[in-house]
Formats: sequence, structure tokens, C-alpha cells
Amino acid sequence: MSDIANMNTVMTDKALLCERYGADAAPAAGEFNEVVRCLIAHRSVRAYLPDALPPGTIETLVAAAQSAATSSNMQTWSVIAVEDAGRRARLAEVANGQVHIVQAPLFLVWLADVSRLERVAAAHKRVLENRDYLETFVVAAMDAALAAQNAVVALESMGLGGVYIGALRNNPERVAAELGLPPRVMPMFGLCVGYPDPAKPAAIKPRLPQSIILSQERYAPKDEMAQVARYDEKLAAFSRAQGMGDVNWTGRILTRFADIKGMSGRERMRSMMKALGFELR
Amino acid sequence: MSDIANMNTVMTDKALLCERYGADAAPAAGEFNEVVRCLIAHRSVRAYLPDALPPGTIETLVAAAQSAATSSNMQTWSVIAVEDAGRRARLAEVANGQVHIVQAPLFLVWLADVSRLERVAAAHKRVLENRDYLETFVVAAMDAALAAQNAVVALESMGLGGVYIGALRNNPERVAAELGLPPRVMPMFGLCVGYPDPAKPAAIKPRLPQSIILSQERYAPKDEMAQVARYDEKLAAFSRAQGMGDVNWTGRILTRFADIKGMSGRERMRSMMKALGFELR
Repeated sequence: MSDIANMNTVMTDKALLCERYGADAAPAAGEFNEVVRCLIAHRSVRAYLPDALPPGTIETLVAAAQSAATSSNMQTWSVIAVEDAGRRARLAEVANGQVHIVQAPLFLVWLADVSRLERVAAAHKRVLENRDYLETFVVAAMDAALAAQNAVVALESMGLGGVYIGALRNNPERVAAELGLPPRVMPMFGLCVGYPDPAKPAAIKPRLPQSIILSQERYAPKDEMAQVARYDEKLAAFSRAQGMGDVNWTGRILTRFADIKGMSGRERMRSMMKALGFELR
Repeated sequence: MSDIANMNTVMTDKALLCERYGADAAPAAGEFNEVVRCLIAHRSVRAYLPDALPPGTIETLVAAAQSAATSSNMQTWSVIAVEDAGRRARLAEVANGQVHIVQAPLFLVWLADVSRLERVAAAHKRVLENRDYLETFVVAAMDAALAAQNAVVALESMGLGGVYIGALRNNPERVAAELGLPPRVMPMFGLCVGYPDPAKPAAIKPRLPQSIILSQERYAPKDEMAQVARYDEKLAAFSRAQGMGDVNWTGRILTRFADIKGMSGRERMRSMMKALGFELR
């Protein structure tokens, strides 16, 4: 527990919530235990030391991942541990050259994997009629996400840092070729894992207030546009402080969703997935 | 930390891994900290006491959820806290009458939510051209999954129990009507939250061995069919011990995926999602 203690006891629970929401929007949450504190202190780490990971790290992360719930216990996901520097560099190219993929000693690629069930069925001379439905892929994608998130919680508790890399979906076919994936396996995202570089500490990113994320009984965000305007200010201030420019949340939404360039090629996901064997009926 | 300590110190790390994988397949993982122990000790709880939750519980769970990573910080998810008994009973009907939805005092419904971004853009007289792509929905679904998994870790650390309810997707249109969802909000799954009934303790469910879930460098499950045969035996023994019949994993795969009945209506997901405003191009 000492790693977490070292990382988080510098901040009180109230201070953590103020970082996460801004002082004006910190929710009335009670005293936290050490697990909750670890969750709320999450930071995405994009600067790593070259240090190797302790033996058993991958096995621990995968044990945590496999302990997450999985729909009907079907376990429709797999993970590939990429440590080879050349392979990490090639995968970084798919992800617009994000240098932390090359920097961190471990890159985990999380897969929505329907192929395992097909191989089991084929051994019994059966065909899985339901493999081609959208629902089947969505379950596999969510299984992969639940598993990966447990791995993230585990690695952060161990004093390591991580960051998800969704940009692998810019070109899933190239990722599939690089990793030797059979049909009906879709690379959902990567995860860099390593020791955070203390010279470039990551900060807790502010999120939207609970009043517009959480509703009681029926969907009813409260005072939404005024809250977004305040959040725009918080996020712009955060970005300036991080040396990431001055763009507020609304600006980021428009860049990402109001222009096809914001899709980074992922507008072709349906056809790319079809090429990987997913009908998505 | 005392809740977790009470729950898990009865089992050593090695014993936890033996429950999770079977003694023959426990991975060579190191000594765990308390967070990792909490993750690996996960159980899905389907029997609850009627006791109310402590004040601040929902706010704590949502703070944990919002602290999870979200793609490009777009936060394309929302959550609805359902405590009203009548509404829980109606949602339980969608989910084949699962009684724990009625039994647990809190039911959280996790939503893939593209509508918030649209409202923000509309306030600036802009249209989000990219809203209709499959990628946009997949990101929202994974955002919801990452968030929910953090909430699950938090609640288990607090001595509470939970279980995901994917069966809300049997009829998302009915769920959307019940919760007053606007277009382009998809209910992904529910989550029961409450105090576990100590008279009906949940057990740690065995998972597939790491040798077929985890590959090094390229996709290469090891000795897959032999491992599945051993897992079939473990899962059948587990099911017998839990009074859940004698069906092994292979049998469950075939029931779920080799017959259209296994879809429980979810083969209509594409058309149901279209009715909810998702083009999924």
C-alpha cells in the first residue's frame, strides 16, 4: 500500500475532489477509503522513465483484468503484451506517432475477441450463428473495457502510470496484421504502462459537474448550458497550466465532432471492421 | 480500509488466485497491495439486504466513475440513479424479472450519451456531423463501461456488492421511455448496488487461464483446446457447488451463441438503436 500512500496522502479527500471538479462543484462525498482515493486520483501519464517493470507485473495486471465482470462469463476479450521496441514503434505510427508508446516499456493491446468462442464451437462441429450481430461485438468491446479498467486501477495502485491509446482504431487492419490477429478479433485500444517521469508530472483533469452527468430517476441534467460554460473556463485554465494551449471544452467538441477531420480515419470503422470479419448485423 | 480488510484478509493472495484460476492455473503474480486484492476478490452479488446505503454513496460512486479515463475527455456517458421501487420493478421486467433489481436499494443505469455534445454544439448553432458514425457510439459505450467499472471497484471497496445487468439491452426502447431519454442516448447496462446478503454469499468465479487470454507480442493462445477442456470441468464444478446446474463453459457458449434464442431479442439491436437515433454508419 506504500506506493499509493506516497502518491495520494499529500492531498486530502476534499482537495482531490476540488482538483477533479473545481472548488465550486466538488460533490458532497464522504470520507474515502484508500481504494476510492486511488480511483479519484487517476491521471493519464504521457511521460515515462525507461525503467523495466518488476517481475510479475503483467500477470498481476491480467489477473486484475480477468477479475472484472464479463457478460455471461463469455470472456470475449484478449490482451497482447508488446514489449519489443520495434513493434511498439510501428504501433506508435498507427497512433499518429505518440512518443509515450515508444517510451513506456510495456504496451498492452486490448482486443474484442469473438474468435475464441468460434474455435471452441468448431471443435464440437458447431457454428456460432450469433457471432455476426452488433450486440455480440458491443459486448466484446465492453468486456475489453471493463477488463482494461481493472488493469489501470491495479497499475496505478502499484505506483505505475498508464494512458489509453484509442488511436489504434485509426487503422485496425494494420494493427491486426502487426499482431497476427485472426478474423473476428478487433483491437479496441492500447495501454502504455511504465513508471511516470517525475520531471513531467501528470495532473488530475477536471470533469463536468455531477449535476449534469448524474440524474435521479429520469434523464434531467440540471442547468446544463451554464454548467458547461463554467466547465469551459476550468478546462481552458487547466490546458494553459499544462502548456496544452487555450482550447476550452466546447472548442474541443467542435474540433472532434463537427468536422470529418476529427475522426482521424475512424469514419471508416464499419468497413474496416467488415474486413476484419465483423458483419455487425 | 476496514471493510476491505474484513472481506479479504480471510484469503491469502495465493488463495485468491487459486479461487480465480484453479490451483493448477494460478499465475506467478507477486504480493498484492490492498487495491489489487480488492480487484481480484470481485464477486457479482445477486442477493441483497434491504438496508439503505450511507449518505453520499451515489456521489462517491459517480466521482470514482468520472475519474476514469474518457476518450478525448468527451465524457460521452451519463448515469441515472433509480431508487423508486416501482421504476426498479418495471426495469426488472425488461431484464427477465431478475429479482435482485427489485431487492437492491439502488439501480444505476449507465448510458452511452452523444446527446450532451449535440446540445452544446446546438447552443453555438453547430451540427455534429460525426455523431452518426459507428466509432462515435463505440467510444460512448466504452466510456460508459470504464466509468461503471470504477464505480464497481469503489462500491466493493466500501463493503457493498454489485452486479451488472446487460439484459436492459433486451429492450432499450422501453428503458429509454421509462427513463425519459432523448435521442442518441443508449442504455448500455444497469448496475444493482446494495449490501450483500450474508446468508447467500457470492463466490469468486473461475476464469480461463492466462495462457489463452494473454499473448506475448503476437496473438498466440497456448494449448487452447486442452485448456478449455480443463476450464469446462472447473466451471461445471463451480456451477454445481453454487446450485446452478451442471453446465460447463462450452455448453454455455453454444446456448448463448449457436441458437438465436440466446440473443434474448438483442439480435434486433441495430434496428432498436436506429429508433433511438443512432445511424451507426
